[in-house]
Amino acid sequence: MRDEFRADLQIVSQLLVDMAEGVRAAMRQATRGLLTADREASEAVIARDAEIDELYRHVEERVCDLLARQAPVASDLRAMITALHVAADLERMGDLADHVAKTALRRHPSPAVPAELRPVFTDMAGIADRMAEKIGSVLAKPDADLAAELDRDDDAMDDLHKSLFGVLLGDDWPYGVETAIDATLLGRFYERFADHAVNAGEHVVYLITGVNSPSAS
Amino acid sequence: MRDEFRADLQIVSQLLVDMAEGVRAAMRQATRGLLTADREASEAVIARDAEIDELYRHVEERVCDLLARQAPVASDLRAMITALHVAADLERMGDLADHVAKTALRRHPSPAVPAELRPVFTDMAGIADRMAEKIGSVLAKPDADLAAELDRDDDAMDDLHKSLFGVLLGDDWPYGVETAIDATLLGRFYERFADHAVNAGEHVVYLITGVNSPSAS
Repeated sequence: MRDEFRADLQIVSQLLVDMAEGVRAAMRQATRGLLTADREASEAVIARDAEIDELYRHVEERVCDLLARQAPVASDLRAMITALHVAADLERMGDLADHVAKTALRRHPSPAVPAELRPVFTDMAGIADRMAEKIGSVLAKPDADLAAELDRDDDAMDDLHKSLFGVLLGDDWPYGVETAIDATLLGRFYERFADHAVNAGEHVVYLITGVNSPSAS
Repeated sequence: MRDEFRADLQIVSQLLVDMAEGVRAAMRQATRGLLTADREASEAVIARDAEIDELYRHVEERVCDLLARQAPVASDLRAMITALHVAADLERMGDLADHVAKTALRRHPSPAVPAELRPVFTDMAGIADRMAEKIGSVLAKPDADLAAELDRDDDAMDDLHKSLFGVLLGDDWPYGVETAIDATLLGRFYERFADHAVNAGEHVVYLITGVNSPSAS
């Protein structure tokens, strides 16, 4: 029974790693579509969001199946509930990549992000990518220190998010309201992506250490 | 064992109803704080978000305890997983009320929403309130027809959200970028509140009918 549980848990973990990799690839591609007005990249993100949703359903089914067959208790039960939380965060991160792609397409062939804002979005995307990579790593190989780094990454994301508003609200913002609205929403998508990565990381830390950190949301 | 499960499930259901009522009250109060620049109302929403988070933790603890003690299967297990989903949606709806309150406070004593936008936000808040009320009702007394109404409410919310952008992007928008950014974020908060209400409703419908509708997010 114990071996069987371990084998099942391994399958669930692998599904979560697959989700993290899928979400990371989606946000990379969404950023490329956004910053280079690459329509095919944006469309591919939207098409592939269904794959991430499908992985999410697989995780839920596996966990429910496992709860029903094995009736785990204590730390095993906790691992199952944590898997559901992490999967929900990853699924939402996939949605946010999809939102970035859709925002880019809405302005295509014009770029949704003007030249002045490309550096800040490049940096936000870089942090988002690093965070998605770390989630994949800690899911593949639990590492509380690496998971804790996500908090610092999120602080850096918040700083960039503030600096974005600084540019939008500068006296010399030349692009008008529509571009400011796009940038506001895009900024929020990257920032929420980071929040969900932090949440997912906290759940993994809880699983490793048993210590529940306060929610980041 | 069966009676015991029913009694436990009843407690979980009541916690969810309490969450739905708390979230509804929070969004009402947040809207009042927003539209009347009522600082005390906004501050009260922020202070009380912790209560909703606490209810969320109670639901999780109860469900985990119940899974461990009773090892439910089939529809009972499904009810437990559904309760976790609904609680997560409600917790997030509380966060969104908190975000509305914080946006209002950031501009206090100025109103964050100018006179031209007050009607659309009044309408969005009205729909949000109706949706939160319906979630509470279907949790207290399962009703698939009432839950299905949430989809129509969400369509009305989406229409209002579009009309908000229409005002912001009109040639005669007089308020500049900062107010447009606030309105963009506020619009998103109400719209996401509705999305989570739809998700929560779908989970309840699934529980009642066993039919899984496609995700709204």
